[in-house]
Amino acid sequence: MDIDYVSNLLKDFKAGNLTLNDALEKLKVLPYEDLEFAKLDHHRLMRQGFAEVVFCQGKTVEQVLAIVDRLADYNRSILATRASREMYEAVKKTVPEATYHELARLITVERQKPPVDQDRFVLVMSAGTSDIPVAEEAAVTAEIMGNAVKRVYDVGVAGIHRLLDQRQLIEKANVLIVVAGMEGALASVVGGMAAKPVIAVPTSIGYGANFGGLAALLSMLNSCAAGVAVVNIDNGFGAGRLASIINHMR
Amino acid sequence: MDIDYVSNLLKDFKAGNLTLNDALEKLKVLPYEDLEFAKLDHHRLMRQGFAEVVFCQGKTVEQVLAIVDRLADYNRSILATRASREMYEAVKKTVPEATYHELARLITVERQKPPVDQDRFVLVMSAGTSDIPVAEEAAVTAEIMGNAVKRVYDVGVAGIHRLLDQRQLIEKANVLIVVAGMEGALASVVGGMAAKPVIAVPTSIGYGANFGGLAALLSMLNSCAAGVAVVNIDNGFGAGRLASIINHMR
Amino acid sequence: MDIDYVSNLLKDFKAGNLTLNDALEKLKVLPYEDLEFAKLDHHRLMRQGFAEVVFCQGKTVEQVLAIVDRLADYNRSILATRASREMYEAVKKTVPEATYHELARLITVERQKPPVDQDRFVLVMSAGTSDIPVAEEAAVTAEIMGNAVKRVYDVGVAGIHRLLDQRQLIEKANVLIVVAGMEGALASVVGGMAAKPVIAVPTSIGYGANFGGLAALLSMLNSCAAGVAVVNIDNGFGAGRLASIINHMR
Amino acid sequence: MDIDYVSNLLKDFKAGNLTLNDALEKLKVLPYEDLEFAKLDHHRLMRQGFAEVVFCQGKTVEQVLAIVDRLADYNRSILATRASREMYEAVKKTVPEATYHELARLITVERQKPPVDQDRFVLVMSAGTSDIPVAEEAAVTAEIMGNAVKRVYDVGVAGIHRLLDQRQLIEKANVLIVVAGMEGALASVVGGMAAKPVIAVPTSIGYGANFGGLAALLSMLNSCAAGVAVVNIDNGFGAGRLASIINHMR
Amino acid sequence: MDIDYVSNLLKDFKAGNLTLNDALEKLKVLPYEDLEFAKLDHHRLMRQGFAEVVFCQGKTVEQVLAIVDRLADYNRSILATRASREMYEAVKKTVPEATYHELARLITVERQKPPVDQDRFVLVMSAGTSDIPVAEEAAVTAEIMGNAVKRVYDVGVAGIHRLLDQRQLIEKANVLIVVAGMEGALASVVGGMAAKPVIAVPTSIGYGANFGGLAALLSMLNSCAAGVAVVNIDNGFGAGRLASIINHMR
Amino acid sequence: MDIDYVSNLLKDFKAGNLTLNDALEKLKVLPYEDLEFAKLDHHRLMRQGFAEVVFCQGKTVEQVLAIVDRLADYNRSILATRASREMYEAVKKTVPEATYHELARLITVERQKPPVDQDRFVLVMSAGTSDIPVAEEAAVTAEIMGNAVKRVYDVGVAGIHRLLDQRQLIEKANVLIVVAGMEGALASVVGGMAAKPVIAVPTSIGYGANFGGLAALLSMLNSCAAGVAVVNIDNGFGAGRLASIINHMR
Amino acid sequence: MDIDYVSNLLKDFKAGNLTLNDALEKLKVLPYEDLEFAKLDHHRLMRQGFAEVVFCQGKTVEQVLAIVDRLADYNRSILATRASREMYEAVKKTVPEATYHELARLITVERQKPPVDQDRFVLVMSAGTSDIPVAEEAAVTAEIMGNAVKRVYDVGVAGIHRLLDQRQLIEKANVLIVVAGMEGALASVVGGMAAKPVIAVPTSIGYGANFGGLAALLSMLNSCAAGVAVVNIDNGFGAGRLASIINHMR
Amino acid sequence: MDIDYVSNLLKDFKAGNLTLNDALEKLKVLPYEDLEFAKLDHHRLMRQGFAEVVFCQGKTVEQVLAIVDRLADYNRSILATRASREMYEAVKKTVPEATYHELARLITVERQKPPVDQDRFVLVMSAGTSDIPVAEEAAVTAEIMGNAVKRVYDVGVAGIHRLLDQRQLIEKANVLIVVAGMEGALASVVGGMAAKPVIAVPTSIGYGANFGGLAALLSMLNSCAAGVAVVNIDNGFGAGRLASIINHMR
Repeated sequence: MDIDYVSNLLKDFKAGNLTLNDALEKLKVLPYEDLEFAKLDHHRLMRQGFAEVVFCQGKTVEQVLAIVDRLADYNRSILATRASREMYEAVKKTVPEATYHELARLITVERQKPPVDQDRFVLVMSAGTSDIPVAEEAAVTAEIMGNAVKRVYDVGVAGIHRLLDQRQLIEKANVLIVVAGMEGALASVVGGMAAKPVIAVPTSIGYGANFGGLAALLSMLNSCAAGVAVVNIDNGFGAGRLASIINHMR
Repeated sequence: MDIDYVSNLLKDFKAGNLTLNDALEKLKVLPYEDLEFAKLDHHRLMRQGFAEVVFCQGKTVEQVLAIVDRLADYNRSILATRASREMYEAVKKTVPEATYHELARLITVERQKPPVDQDRFVLVMSAGTSDIPVAEEAAVTAEIMGNAVKRVYDVGVAGIHRLLDQRQLIEKANVLIVVAGMEGALASVVGGMAAKPVIAVPTSIGYGANFGGLAALLSMLNSCAAGVAVVNIDNGFGAGRLASIINHMR
Repeated sequence: MDIDYVSNLLKDFKAGNLTLNDALEKLKVLPYEDLEFAKLDHHRLMRQGFAEVVFCQGKTVEQVLAIVDRLADYNRSILATRASREMYEAVKKTVPEATYHELARLITVERQKPPVDQDRFVLVMSAGTSDIPVAEEAAVTAEIMGNAVKRVYDVGVAGIHRLLDQRQLIEKANVLIVVAGMEGALASVVGGMAAKPVIAVPTSIGYGANFGGLAALLSMLNSCAAGVAVVNIDNGFGAGRLASIINHMR
Repeated sequence: MDIDYVSNLLKDFKAGNLTLNDALEKLKVLPYEDLEFAKLDHHRLMRQGFAEVVFCQGKTVEQVLAIVDRLADYNRSILATRASREMYEAVKKTVPEATYHELARLITVERQKPPVDQDRFVLVMSAGTSDIPVAEEAAVTAEIMGNAVKRVYDVGVAGIHRLLDQRQLIEKANVLIVVAGMEGALASVVGGMAAKPVIAVPTSIGYGANFGGLAALLSMLNSCAAGVAVVNIDNGFGAGRLASIINHMR
Repeated sequence: MDIDYVSNLLKDFKAGNLTLNDALEKLKVLPYEDLEFAKLDHHRLMRQGFAEVVFCQGKTVEQVLAIVDRLADYNRSILATRASREMYEAVKKTVPEATYHELARLITVERQKPPVDQDRFVLVMSAGTSDIPVAEEAAVTAEIMGNAVKRVYDVGVAGIHRLLDQRQLIEKANVLIVVAGMEGALASVVGGMAAKPVIAVPTSIGYGANFGGLAALLSMLNSCAAGVAVVNIDNGFGAGRLASIINHMR
Repeated sequence: MDIDYVSNLLKDFKAGNLTLNDALEKLKVLPYEDLEFAKLDHHRLMRQGFAEVVFCQGKTVEQVLAIVDRLADYNRSILATRASREMYEAVKKTVPEATYHELARLITVERQKPPVDQDRFVLVMSAGTSDIPVAEEAAVTAEIMGNAVKRVYDVGVAGIHRLLDQRQLIEKANVLIVVAGMEGALASVVGGMAAKPVIAVPTSIGYGANFGGLAALLSMLNSCAAGVAVVNIDNGFGAGRLASIINHMR
Repeated sequence: MDIDYVSNLLKDFKAGNLTLNDALEKLKVLPYEDLEFAKLDHHRLMRQGFAEVVFCQGKTVEQVLAIVDRLADYNRSILATRASREMYEAVKKTVPEATYHELARLITVERQKPPVDQDRFVLVMSAGTSDIPVAEEAAVTAEIMGNAVKRVYDVGVAGIHRLLDQRQLIEKANVLIVVAGMEGALASVVGGMAAKPVIAVPTSIGYGANFGGLAALLSMLNSCAAGVAVVNIDNGFGAGRLASIINHMR
Repeated sequence: MDIDYVSNLLKDFKAGNLTLNDALEKLKVLPYEDLEFAKLDHHRLMRQGFAEVVFCQGKTVEQVLAIVDRLADYNRSILATRASREMYEAVKKTVPEATYHELARLITVERQKPPVDQDRFVLVMSAGTSDIPVAEEAAVTAEIMGNAVKRVYDVGVAGIHRLLDQRQLIEKANVLIVVAGMEGALASVVGGMAAKPVIAVPTSIGYGANFGGLAALLSMLNSCAAGVAVVNIDNGFGAGRLASIINHMR
């Protein structure tokens, strides 16, 4: 977001050359910053409630550094996904508040905790221990976006009593994220128990005819439970982001 | 739900043989009715806010008739999806209030309109004219579940100005359902414009390398916009149901 | 089985030209009857415990008739799968004891009930009403092969309490057949509850990204429950046959 | 299974505070231990005849160690699959009886040999030399669960006389496990020769249009022999477990 | 082949304006006849030993008629594949020697039997009765191209003794065509028994995870027997043609 | 395009209230007509050189009629693709100049021939006779958009001399459209011969492992010839449209 | 191209033994140089406007070196794609003018800049930062073939305002190359905005159900915008080459 | 082949206890040697004309060494495919005549050249330089089995004149092997030119939508040329073996 652009805009508004509505409208639609190899959408915070998130995979360390650097100038909270430890080490030098979440491969910057409504929590469930990295990506994403998060891991359907023990938590949750690889059946069972939206995240965990998460993906898409929607394989971030949007609805 | 079961339960409660919590708990978990070829979950209304929905595909006319008949004894609103006109004609004889939605292939019974919050509307968008049947399945589902619904059809991304004209509507909507076949790109564009949850429904409309909706499905799953989740190909009902759940959150 | 061959063999045995073991060995390996377009394995009954089963799909009515006719000369029980009503009408004229199972598309001939151990029953479960035809193919197959069969239909995992109500039956069953389309999650849940072998049958019921049963198939193959094995999509017969083999083990 | 929990339960029973049925019921359904990242189902031994098996893939060495450690407190026999040598080295320090099966990538602990019925053996066959690791996973699994196991390796159908030489063994086996990659045809041929259940395990061995085991998987699912069921690609453990369940049926 | 072109060419040759080699060369490369919607390669007989074969699928009755008509002017033998009875009825009016092979869907014209070497026969085998139409397409194709053909049908590997009975025939055959649907294992077993080339034809016969012949196709491509090559699913003609080419090699 | 809108705009321009550039700009971006089930982009002619094309598949006869009717009010040339004869009969009543192209399933209206540059022709080639319907869709599309078109059909690569005879035509063509099913190899060979852009159209013609055009599609995408681009399976219209755009470049 | 061959040919021409047309014709069709492991098509420059391009993947460093060496003898400009830095280091020693484009993995030799028409530029757009390597392959290819190129990167559709800002550039471009991974929606949106040909390049960037670029590929093939054609996944070179051919048309 | 078995057999024959035919018959069917992890079919030489070939992939160096060692005791020629250099180094120590073919990854032992008919040669063609390793696997295989082999590499169809130059060689070849990756079109073009059998070998060379050789595989299976059959992706050995079988037919 070009800082001159905004200050001029604000001056115009103060001077009465611009109505409040016009100013807001202008701020809502236009500006982004052009780094040549990336166009930073500084305005996303205003438009969608959280700053642009950096998807690090396929970017060089230098590119990630440059982008995070610029975002750090204008935002309190920053989220970078699929980040390597090497990227984190580079970022940390210029943005010392940065934290690295090893399992979830996330870099977060959180200069000021957002207010959180503890009663409206997001419940993140995983079918197995091996699904935890994806589940953590979802959980940390939801947390940095200002949500209370509870975690219940390793409750796959082959031991249904482990899952049934969580019935009360499932009924109380405001939004549910179900992370499962292999046959992904957890989403259907939870979908039938919950009265709230269930976001299903297939993972690539498994082997053989799992085909990189295809089995869990198809399983979740064909869920016999209504109220379930699916995001991409291993896309913990997407689930956390959507859960946050829903959880902030009033 | 066995009516005797419930009346006895209530009598027990009144007589003090059952605490309020125990009574609620019992009502919440147990009863369904066994038709041998189907186990009707009469209690879903209490547990998830809407009665069991009849998925007619693969059932005989006789089975559909028997199920709807039983549901009609206990519920004000009934929804049957993927219903043929022949099924409707059979149902109508015993449930005269039934309505048939030709395009959406839905049978609905609505004896009393549920209260609707007109300010919190669900926006159903379709990319093309041929996607309208699936869009209507979503829209009618959301309506019978007590939601205000607005429709915007034929706004595929190849004519981006048609879509941009809907910007204000998109920004005001509380939940968005995007129905698209072919390359399904509409979901990503709308996902980037909206600050609210977007439920994407791929359709099997298209030809060639569309492979029965696979192209749109993969496209939507890989959407570069956060805040988008996907339901099964042509699953308008699932989208409408999930939209309703989200829209009723407070 | 060439009748002359067998009678000569028996005469040889009686005359002492053949030891008992040699006679049995010869009977076990060799004979089948050549109808030119089919080679009937009359000896399967002796080798594998049930006569050759006729797979009618892709055969003409004349071919089915000729095969059943020949089998009827040597066997008490006959089973023909994927049979049309037209095939049944043809068969009935020459084999009047034949029965047609409409839903399961089976022709059976059962001239003498085999002895059945009622305590060791096969439990056939279906996730939905639409899966019943495949479930019936499995159930009738197991019955004609001399097994007690119990049926529990429409207990899909989205209403987990319907399934949990069957816990005792599931624990008592000697072999379980789980028939499910859509996401096929029932197999995993039952697999975790049962201590006996579970044979999972994916069905082609569903729509969209079900891809003709692929979703349920992959789901079942990737089941997180041990003790589950899978047969081909819609292959009720195969499941019934295998269940019978296992159920007769001592 | 918390040992205190069980002893108290038993005392209660002895003291008459608990009926026999109630005690059994309680034992059957409830306890598992929560390690936060894993929920150990200590009760599986009682419910399904063998303790929970540790699937090591995707878990850290620390997680595997913690789980095996806890299992070692309550069980005589332990099985961990897809284990690396590194995991084994870690486990061995605290559970010195642990053995590593290099080819099969299994860690086993077997403090007391279970009783084995030598007449009822499981026959494990492999089509090629390269399929042996998966075959060994099946064989060792069946052995630790108390079964006699015989092995016949490298009897692929392209040299049918090698297979026919095993006819007697095939006929005598109580349960058969057929492990094959490439075109997986061995399952069909053995399925036609055996009168007992055949569990087919496709392997990912092969190249070109084998597509990671898909060719063998589809081949086995479409087997023209009845009595064959399939487990996931390379899933030797699943086959061994199922074979053991069947082999223990009386 | 433009008749004037050839007669002039021959005259030139007679007159000494063209050497023998030049004349042959010219005849070998050039002419075909342009029907606008089809370019008939009249010269294929000279170049590849048999006239152009008409693939009728996707052509109108009129187009087939016009093409066969033209071919009939220049050739003794004609073959049209995937022909409907309606096409045959049309062809018969102008080419009365035409014969229709119902099962194989072939139209043949054979005005003079080609010389046949009875000792070098092509063996066509089918795994099941339902594969016979494709097997017949192969067999009739080989016959009209001047080969002795023997047929052995319904010898699938699930009854291996039926197949072993054919051992001598298999060893004597000069070229083998193996037609099989379902899991297609017959090709591998025959491939291991024969010392001559085996042409494998997968068929679309089967159901469930057969996926229109994909299972048999992959199975045959991954055959563990060397000496096996594969043609397209249901492509009996291609197999018969290739068998004929090989069988005529000296 | 709202006619009032345009007339007012033009009046404003005449009155000097609007500069030429402003008028053009306004015309270029905005108007379309809302039929509720379709949003007609009347302005496409100005923006992209040809009016909106009606894709009839999945639309009702009434919808097609309504759309063509409206388009007929504002355009000289109209194109409707994938149209049934029934749609044509309906259209013809209100737009009598409409023509139906049976093979190509196109409805065209051409009130005034566009000027055509005969030297810059589009060459449409098909590999087989069965590919002609798709080829004709491409050819007629290019013609109605004002291009000279030459057709060369049935020149598949298995008879390479038929193709080589077209060398001069191939070298002279300005844009080439190659339509081929089966293995689609024609695109690569032509791509190597031509110095101009080649648009490849895979068709669904074929059988067996053609998988609805997938074989030809993959083949063309992997073409070893540079200068080849691919459109969707059977998408003759798309190829014709793109060829026209390229052919009109100067 | 054998240099003797050409000089003799030219001498013949000068001596009047060859007409101009004959000489050109001979030059156009014949010569290439045989390196045994490669057949260099030296004549492609004359036939298709640019020398043979070296596809380095799967070749050894020695092979690449030998080929580039020979090309360097006859051509001013050379392009080698998918080249490793190691290959470049080897080439540089004998062809010192060679340049390495790290991101695009290209080796170029450009001894004399071709004339470039600055008004007719190729616009290369990428959806994300991670797609830049493929976009650069396209851009550099177009540049070395004599085209003006403009680049606009990171304008994915989830931030539609970033894309709309480029509207004027899009409208002015003569040919457009759209490079996108994930859901590939950019091609459709740009296709609807541009009046010129759009070449879409799917990339393998993404994760989960992206399946190595399949999602973007299918999306682009099914684009609802006419005027879009697709090249292989990650095939930046193919797109640049085709863009150059189109851009040079007059 | 157990040496005692054979010597006894021969002694019996000499002593007149066995007729010539009986001796041959016994030798033909039975013996193989059991190495526990492999069953060596020493008799294949007699049955199919060449000793058992060692497929090294997936085997340990020790296993390969043991197998080659045993084969070396009984055979003049040995072939081991997919062998690493490390395997070769191990083999060489005990079988010093062994040769390693780096490109083709073959180990060969050839103690005595088999007689070769130079007039009946096998022609091995490759589309590109990168396909040479697979082509060499085919060529060396055919050579060691006693065939004259000619090689023509890098004649892909995009430069059709390079291929046409080989017309005479193609017409003279007795059997043709066509090795091609990418779109695999070479098989169809050669298939149309040759009057002899064509064995097509798809390779995994390519990128993007090549999907590991799937594109070339499907292309070749759908070839419009008759007389073409296909082996597995990258299966040069299979092609060479089949070519040898055909080439030795008289």
